[in-house]
Amino acid sequence: MVIVVRPGATKAEVREIVDLIESKGLKTHFSEGTQVTIIGVVGDKTLLVGTPLEALSGVDKIVPIAESYKLASRTFRPEGTVLEFPGCRVGGKELVMMAGPCAVESEAQIMASAKAVKASGAKFLRGGAYKPRTSPYAFQGLETEGLKLMRQAADAYRLLVISEITSENDLAEAARYVDMVQIGARNAQNFRLLREVGRSGLPVLLKRGIAETIEEWLQSSEYVLSEGNYKVILCERGIRTFETATRSTLDIAAVPVLKARTHLPVFVDPSHAAGRAAYVAPLSKASVAAGADGLIVEVHPEPKKALSDAAQQITFEEFDQLCRDIAGMAPICGREFRHGG
Amino acid sequence: MVIVVRPGATKAEVREIVDLIESKGLKTHFSEGTQVTIIGVVGDKTLLVGTPLEALSGVDKIVPIAESYKLASRTFRPEGTVLEFPGCRVGGKELVMMAGPCAVESEAQIMASAKAVKASGAKFLRGGAYKPRTSPYAFQGLETEGLKLMRQAADAYRLLVISEITSENDLAEAARYVDMVQIGARNAQNFRLLREVGRSGLPVLLKRGIAETIEEWLQSSEYVLSEGNYKVILCERGIRTFETATRSTLDIAAVPVLKARTHLPVFVDPSHAAGRAAYVAPLSKASVAAGADGLIVEVHPEPKKALSDAAQQITFEEFDQLCRDIAGMAPICGREFRHGG
Amino acid sequence: MVIVVRPGATKAEVREIVDLIESKGLKTHFSEGTQVTIIGVVGDKTLLVGTPLEALSGVDKIVPIAESYKLASRTFRPEGTVLEFPGCRVGGKELVMMAGPCAVESEAQIMASAKAVKASGAKFLRGGAYKPRTSPYAFQGLETEGLKLMRQAADAYRLLVISEITSENDLAEAARYVDMVQIGARNAQNFRLLREVGRSGLPVLLKRGIAETIEEWLQSSEYVLSEGNYKVILCERGIRTFETATRSTLDIAAVPVLKARTHLPVFVDPSHAAGRAAYVAPLSKASVAAGADGLIVEVHPEPKKALSDAAQQITFEEFDQLCRDIAGMAPICGREFRHGG
Amino acid sequence: MVIVVRPGATKAEVREIVDLIESKGLKTHFSEGTQVTIIGVVGDKTLLVGTPLEALSGVDKIVPIAESYKLASRTFRPEGTVLEFPGCRVGGKELVMMAGPCAVESEAQIMASAKAVKASGAKFLRGGAYKPRTSPYAFQGLETEGLKLMRQAADAYRLLVISEITSENDLAEAARYVDMVQIGARNAQNFRLLREVGRSGLPVLLKRGIAETIEEWLQSSEYVLSEGNYKVILCERGIRTFETATRSTLDIAAVPVLKARTHLPVFVDPSHAAGRAAYVAPLSKASVAAGADGLIVEVHPEPKKALSDAAQQITFEEFDQLCRDIAGMAPICGREFRHGG
Repeated sequence: MVIVVRPGATKAEVREIVDLIESKGLKTHFSEGTQVTIIGVVGDKTLLVGTPLEALSGVDKIVPIAESYKLASRTFRPEGTVLEFPGCRVGGKELVMMAGPCAVESEAQIMASAKAVKASGAKFLRGGAYKPRTSPYAFQGLETEGLKLMRQAADAYRLLVISEITSENDLAEAARYVDMVQIGARNAQNFRLLREVGRSGLPVLLKRGIAETIEEWLQSSEYVLSEGNYKVILCERGIRTFETATRSTLDIAAVPVLKARTHLPVFVDPSHAAGRAAYVAPLSKASVAAGADGLIVEVHPEPKKALSDAAQQITFEEFDQLCRDIAGMAPICGREFRHGG
Repeated sequence: MVIVVRPGATKAEVREIVDLIESKGLKTHFSEGTQVTIIGVVGDKTLLVGTPLEALSGVDKIVPIAESYKLASRTFRPEGTVLEFPGCRVGGKELVMMAGPCAVESEAQIMASAKAVKASGAKFLRGGAYKPRTSPYAFQGLETEGLKLMRQAADAYRLLVISEITSENDLAEAARYVDMVQIGARNAQNFRLLREVGRSGLPVLLKRGIAETIEEWLQSSEYVLSEGNYKVILCERGIRTFETATRSTLDIAAVPVLKARTHLPVFVDPSHAAGRAAYVAPLSKASVAAGADGLIVEVHPEPKKALSDAAQQITFEEFDQLCRDIAGMAPICGREFRHGG
Repeated sequence: MVIVVRPGATKAEVREIVDLIESKGLKTHFSEGTQVTIIGVVGDKTLLVGTPLEALSGVDKIVPIAESYKLASRTFRPEGTVLEFPGCRVGGKELVMMAGPCAVESEAQIMASAKAVKASGAKFLRGGAYKPRTSPYAFQGLETEGLKLMRQAADAYRLLVISEITSENDLAEAARYVDMVQIGARNAQNFRLLREVGRSGLPVLLKRGIAETIEEWLQSSEYVLSEGNYKVILCERGIRTFETATRSTLDIAAVPVLKARTHLPVFVDPSHAAGRAAYVAPLSKASVAAGADGLIVEVHPEPKKALSDAAQQITFEEFDQLCRDIAGMAPICGREFRHGG
Repeated sequence: MVIVVRPGATKAEVREIVDLIESKGLKTHFSEGTQVTIIGVVGDKTLLVGTPLEALSGVDKIVPIAESYKLASRTFRPEGTVLEFPGCRVGGKELVMMAGPCAVESEAQIMASAKAVKASGAKFLRGGAYKPRTSPYAFQGLETEGLKLMRQAADAYRLLVISEITSENDLAEAARYVDMVQIGARNAQNFRLLREVGRSGLPVLLKRGIAETIEEWLQSSEYVLSEGNYKVILCERGIRTFETATRSTLDIAAVPVLKARTHLPVFVDPSHAAGRAAYVAPLSKASVAAGADGLIVEVHPEPKKALSDAAQQITFEEFDQLCRDIAGMAPICGREFRHGG
């Protein structure tokens, strides 16, 4: 941390800053420049939590230097994190595909989906049981019934289950049916939920908030990690910008940025970023080329009849072709992915 | 709703669109242009919820025309909503000031704050008991103890209490101590929480999500309203943009836009938007000039010693001067505000 | 400037950084922390222009500390800049109003506009002769003929003339007719144009680029100032964000931020920010309350018949009422403004 | 175009709208809904240029339906545009690589760069002669001398030359030395420059403005096309968002969106988007996977010694490896690219 001293600050004001920092057990380095004077702070910055340096009259601004997250930092675990599941490893050489409908709608729909995505190479069946919808008048999901149907379909086709939860109150129920919970973009800074997921020890796919910086996202993940739960996947799903041609703007650079900064596996959700089925395949391939560890893709037996996000779900045939293409790309990207079950 | 037909769509594809709409009991108007053909949809659009028009092959895009919210719309209650509290009315001619520290830290701090803000003209005492913090290592609030201290201080100085809740699980406890709950920016699309607040019937100040459009914000409010709870205040607190000179970018135009679109009272939080004490007064005055019904301002006995958001809290003296200035401006803005208790 | 050393950098890599800086005649301060090591750079940073510190293998990142502009900085001229014109002073106590149509369309239109805005208290007549339009098929302005008509109208009613130029090739021609040139948002980083305006010595109102940070904007102004031309007004006109309810998002906080950072006068253009006539008055009043030195407002005899930006121009009557309201607010804001000629 | 009638508009107000449209030779379709009434406009919308429909009292809003560009639209030339150059075709099956230093600095530097990029498979030598720099104190380029050096180096290694121009006044001079001009992000809406480039008939690579929507970008290209010059390449280079981990946010989805909407070739500049050399390769591969027709990459003999943008230029070795990787990916992406000269 570097403190920039306000131009014109008195010696007493500067002393006040230094004294406050040193009273907390940290050291200071003083550097007087021609235009500005700065104070470098050396030591464990967590000792300064709750110390309102910014409010001192001698302080112009505080420039953070070190990362604001610890357990998520790559320096904490340089070799990277690999999550082990029956039949697949996430974060290693294998590209892992998660696929399924936006929302679970019926037994027939989810069984057909499980069969199809398995046949194309997916390891996880995705599907929404609790749907966070912008409008209260939209379809809100089958809830527990949806989770049961997913478990049944996944078991029938030897798949793992991932599904979103939107409240800490659903965690115990979801834990009975899923292999991994998902926290969606709208709850990316629902810290109560993050903390409870951390305590549950359940693997979690944590989507980026629609206006969350990469730094803040890693801090969100820290809520889970700091409870001792290291089974976290980060999933880029597009950010909000001024461009409206797509539903969100996929921040493809987040993939290499995260690979450099954190040891956690990095996924991409091309479906929510695109908002249109036609763009899902190009964004999926781009994500793999950029270094993603896996994808989570919305696939529906009949997108035209879907109860939510109809425009962005692809058909079984489109998904199968995508998996073929990715199987072709994988070796060139230093990855393994096998098309077909 | 207007459906733009894909250029080159066959007659059968167009028929499929029309049939689907009409099967739901709505009517269509057909308009064939030189470049594009459009289908206007007439009737109650909620009949189309769950109908995946976007996925039909003949559809190029769907252009919403009518507002996506109903109960929040000004057309629903053209005269505007006024919330009645002991000693003040929100949404009428009176400008209502809410003020207090970012977080409740101690009995002495909150008592002093209550005394000071009352003396300057505030009607509500604000203060955080449950603090949503970006980092898990930051001060997280006194929780129930904080609420009790606020109630005690407010009662001592005849103020009303407003405080943030971050989980539906805190609602019952908060209801024992507060006159109004606040939903913060990070929970602006926590629909579970919104729905429960709606069911509780408690007055609520609903802040705008950091990346929420005005349209989406009104849909969020609809989650509360649709449970029969009309005691909702909307509070602009800045949006996330590329500019970093302030913590958020205060969308001052949201005030007149909301006044035109909704009957709900509109507040501004200049403290979180600014992120620096020096900008709180100019933003407060600008908000009043733009037509806000009230302000919620962070005030602390000694900002330098605050446990959170130290940089943006103003002193009692600064708050008192601000209230004087606003009392001067109020009549010119067609408002009433009395400086002093 | 603070250089953050890459974790794991060798001593030789650190030495390379220090040597490079010192070879340019600057000094370094070394601060070794528990997590990171930083090198403070002391001296005139312009000596480092063209020195690619970022590319050294030992450098993790470079954190600028001092401002990147000089002549525009308030520290350069703490008392503030006042521009003197016949009949008005910009940047002092007086609030200065500039008003007129989006585009000059005819002699009758501009004469009527001049008469009306003068009668309400404006000191400058604005009007577009060269119109930068997003579409090549839109009305592009009357060019020189428009400038002549503005001069004639301004002279008839003792007003000053401000008009936009979009190329350095129009500067000589414009200089014959205008008292101040305007550089629009789309040319905010057209450095060739900025430099030539600097050399011309003409007063200039420099609008903010639609995606320009305040820091970059001040650097743009530096292109003019560094040619010895200090007659610069900065004009906030809204930035591009995800919100579409208004044409741009007026960054009202830019007003106090600029007042703190620069000595240059600060104006606001509420018309382009709003994009709708109904929001022009609230945004105008908010700007004055936030501390703006003046406004530039689009006014048209018959907005319904305007050839460009019809939706955002207000009528003479609306402008007159706005000037009345501002005359009422001015004294409370420590300003002077007289409604009426 | 669809006109939404203001709720509560009188019959006379509606008539006024219809009459105005029909007086211009267009037809209207009337559709009265339960919530809103809309008027569809049928015919050539350019007849309405300069008709201020938005300002009519009966108009609530105008919703554009058809694209606002014509000549750039894919419907105008469904087969796509291929630009022919000696030794390469842009926009066809071949992936075209443009590479070279950010700025031309010396004969030795540009000769070495030409040799290296040619050996790796580039067809165009890029290099800046006129540099638009945010700060007036930064290196501004060698200007004409730089163009001459580029021509000489390109001729020595059978490469084509592309270089940026920043003013219409440099066009004639540049035309003597370059095979293609580049218009940079800061001049993306410098319509005077666009028009003159159109008139020159020179091939042009048009970068996206940092805050330009895809729609506006296509309108910018229309300025060139409408002068009869169809030799236009669109180049995505990142947009400005709230994320600061990269210099800009590469909008990778712009590639498939543009491929669907326009017949013009689509390139990506990964260097300016990333702002850091380490991210250039992943973004390059992602761009090819997403369907780009080519890349323009910054390569420098010794990035550590570059006079501008040192952090984002890659070495010859890094570029060679990137070209190898892309040669491997090309066939899987349905493309041709040969590593090596």
